[in-house]
Amino acid sequence: MTVTTDRLPLWLELSLLAQYEAGVAAAFTALPDDPAATRARLPALTSELQQRFDAALAWQAADRTLLCPDDPRYPPLLRQLADPPLLLYVLGNVEVLSDPQLAMVGSRNPTPPGRDNAVAFAKALAESGLTITSGLALGIDTAAHEGALAGKGPTIAVAGTGVDRVYPSSNRPLAHRIVAGGGALISEFALGTPPMKHQFPRRNRIISGLSLGTLVVEAALSSGSLITARQAGEQGREVFAIPGSIHNPMAKGCHQLIRQGAKLVETAQHVLEELGALIPLTLTASAADPVPAQANPIDRDGLDAEQLQLLAEMGFDPISTDELISRTGFRADEVAGMLLTLELNSVVAAVPGGYLRRR
Amino acid sequence: MTVTTDRLPLWLELSLLAQYEAGVAAAFTALPDDPAATRARLPALTSELQQRFDAALAWQAADRTLLCPDDPRYPPLLRQLADPPLLLYVLGNVEVLSDPQLAMVGSRNPTPPGRDNAVAFAKALAESGLTITSGLALGIDTAAHEGALAGKGPTIAVAGTGVDRVYPSSNRPLAHRIVAGGGALISEFALGTPPMKHQFPRRNRIISGLSLGTLVVEAALSSGSLITARQAGEQGREVFAIPGSIHNPMAKGCHQLIRQGAKLVETAQHVLEELGALIPLTLTASAADPVPAQANPIDRDGLDAEQLQLLAEMGFDPISTDELISRTGFRADEVAGMLLTLELNSVVAAVPGGYLRRR
Repeated sequence: MTVTTDRLPLWLELSLLAQYEAGVAAAFTALPDDPAATRARLPALTSELQQRFDAALAWQAADRTLLCPDDPRYPPLLRQLADPPLLLYVLGNVEVLSDPQLAMVGSRNPTPPGRDNAVAFAKALAESGLTITSGLALGIDTAAHEGALAGKGPTIAVAGTGVDRVYPSSNRPLAHRIVAGGGALISEFALGTPPMKHQFPRRNRIISGLSLGTLVVEAALSSGSLITARQAGEQGREVFAIPGSIHNPMAKGCHQLIRQGAKLVETAQHVLEELGALIPLTLTASAADPVPAQANPIDRDGLDAEQLQLLAEMGFDPISTDELISRTGFRADEVAGMLLTLELNSVVAAVPGGYLRRR
Repeated sequence: MTVTTDRLPLWLELSLLAQYEAGVAAAFTALPDDPAATRARLPALTSELQQRFDAALAWQAADRTLLCPDDPRYPPLLRQLADPPLLLYVLGNVEVLSDPQLAMVGSRNPTPPGRDNAVAFAKALAESGLTITSGLALGIDTAAHEGALAGKGPTIAVAGTGVDRVYPSSNRPLAHRIVAGGGALISEFALGTPPMKHQFPRRNRIISGLSLGTLVVEAALSSGSLITARQAGEQGREVFAIPGSIHNPMAKGCHQLIRQGAKLVETAQHVLEELGALIPLTLTASAADPVPAQANPIDRDGLDAEQLQLLAEMGFDPISTDELISRTGFRADEVAGMLLTLELNSVVAAVPGGYLRRR
C-alpha cells in the first residue's frame, strides 16, 4: 500500500528541518516547486534528525504511509493552503484523505446536549457521505469521531503529536477504532513528538484545510475551536455553527462566529444544503431531523415524501394536529391519515394534546 | 394637549373609509398629498360611519389624541412606510411616538426562559434610552412592556383593536400602567373595533414601522412575529433575533431569521451597538451583562452538590426527567424531588417534554 516517490526522502528531510530547525518553517509559504534546490540551501541533518529520518522510513508498513506532496494521494484541498504540510504521517487508510470532508470541532468540556448534538450531526453527515475530520481531543472531537463511526463512515483524526503518541491517551482505543473503521490518524509532526501547546494551532489548520467546511458545535469564547474556524474562513472554506441558549457559556463562541458571518445550522440538512453545491451528497432522512434519532433511524424507504415532511415539521416535542396542519399546509384529513399510518408504524405516538415523534 | 389641525376631520374621514369601505384602503399606497381631493373622489359617510366620526371627535381629551399626518407629532418613521396610517388614535403620551424605539415581538406561548429574556432585554434597553414598542399580546409582548416599565422607560403598545377595546382583556391593567408610565396605547383602527384576525398583520407593520429595529425574542416557525420581522426588513429597518437551543421549537423562528440575515443578539449591548450608529444612546452596565446575570444569578451556596450536578447535566436545553436520571445516575424519586425544589426556586421550569434551566 505504501507508495514511495523518488523525492520522498527529500520531503521527509524538509519536514524534519521545518519542525526542528528554528526559522526553517517560516521559509515555507507554499510547497517548494523544487524541493531539491530548497534542500540544498538548508543545513545537514543533525545526528538526532538523522535518527528521526531513519525511524520514519523504517516506520512505513501496509497501513503506515509517509505522504509527500509528490504523491497523487496528497489531499488536493491541503495543497491550496498558504502553508501546506511538507509531509504527512498517515496511520490507516490514506485514500480517505481525498474524500469530501467536514471538520467538526468544539469544546473539550461540552454540555451533555452539546455532546449529543455532535454525535447526532456526525452520524447523520457520515450517513450522507461526508467524512468527518476532527482532532481526537476530549469532548466534541471525541463525540464527532464516535458519531461518524456510528454512522458507518470513515473519520479522520488529525493529531497534534506524532501519530505514535495518541493524545489524550484515554482516546487510544478510539484511535484504533478510527483506523479499523477505514479512517486514518494523521500528523505532520515527527514520530515521537509529544503534545506541546504551540503545535495545536498548526494542527488545527490541517483539520480545517482538509475540509470543505468546519462546523463548531459548542465553544466558549477564546477557545481553540474558534482558531480553527478562523483558519477555515481564511482558507476560503465554509464555517458553520450550532446556536444555543444565550445562557449557555458553551454557545457563546458559536454565537460570536455567527455574528461574524458563520452559517447558523440547526440540522445536518442545513450543512448538506450548503455543501451540496460543492459535491454530490446523499440526503438522508436523519439529516433533516433537529437531532437525528440515535437508536432507530427512520427507514426512509418506508415513508413517502409527505410523511417525511410531516415528521420534519413535528420535531421532538408534543405537537397538536392543528399546528401540524398549519405548519405543513396539508389538509386536516391528510394529516390525520398520515398520523395514523405513522402511529401504526411506531414512528409517532399519541400523547395528551397531540402527537410526539418516537424516533 | 390635543392639537387639532384644520384638516383633521378630513383625515378622520379618510381613515374611516379606508377601514370600512371595501377597496378604499388599497387606494392608499402613500399618504395623499391632497387629502381633500382624495376625499372628494370617495363616497359620503354612511350613517354608521358618521356616528363613528362624531364619536372619535368627541373622544378627544387631555390624554386622548387623534393624530393625523399634518400634525408635527406624527412619527417621522411611520411617514416613511409604503402605507402609513391615515390617522392614529393615541391614548397617553403622544410625544413618545417620535422617540427612538425598538420593537420587541415574539410568541404568545414562550418558554419561561424566553419570557425572562424579554423582560431583561426590555429593562436594559429602556434604561439605555430606547422606548420599547410591542403589541400588548400575551407572552413576549407582555414581557417586553413589563420589562420596559421595570426599567422606568416609556413603552408603546400598538393595538390590533380600537384603543378602547384592550385585547386581551387580561392586559387591561397593563395598558393602564403603560399610559400612567408616560407611554401610549395607540391604534389606527376606529374606536370600538373588535379583535379580527386580518387586523393583526396591519397592526404589525405599525409596530415595526415606528421602530429603528425589531427584536424577535422567541418565535415558532410560521408565527406572526416573523411577519413583523419581515415587514421590518421590507421597511429597511434592523432585524434582531435571540438564538436558542436547536431543540427549542420557540427558537426555530429566530434561527430562520438569522439564517436569512437577521442579526444574532445575545445581549442588550448587541442591540445598542447596532442602533448606536443611528441615535445617541446611553450604554448602561446592565446592557452589557448576559441577560440572566442581572436578574438572579444562581446562588451556588443555596444549592447542594447534587443539585449543582443535576444542573450541570441539564445544560440549557429542554431535557426529559428520564434523560436526567440516566445522565446523573440518581434515582427517579431523588431527581423528582430535586426538580421540584429547583422549580420552586425558579431555577428550572417545566416545559413540554421535561425541564429547562432558567439561569
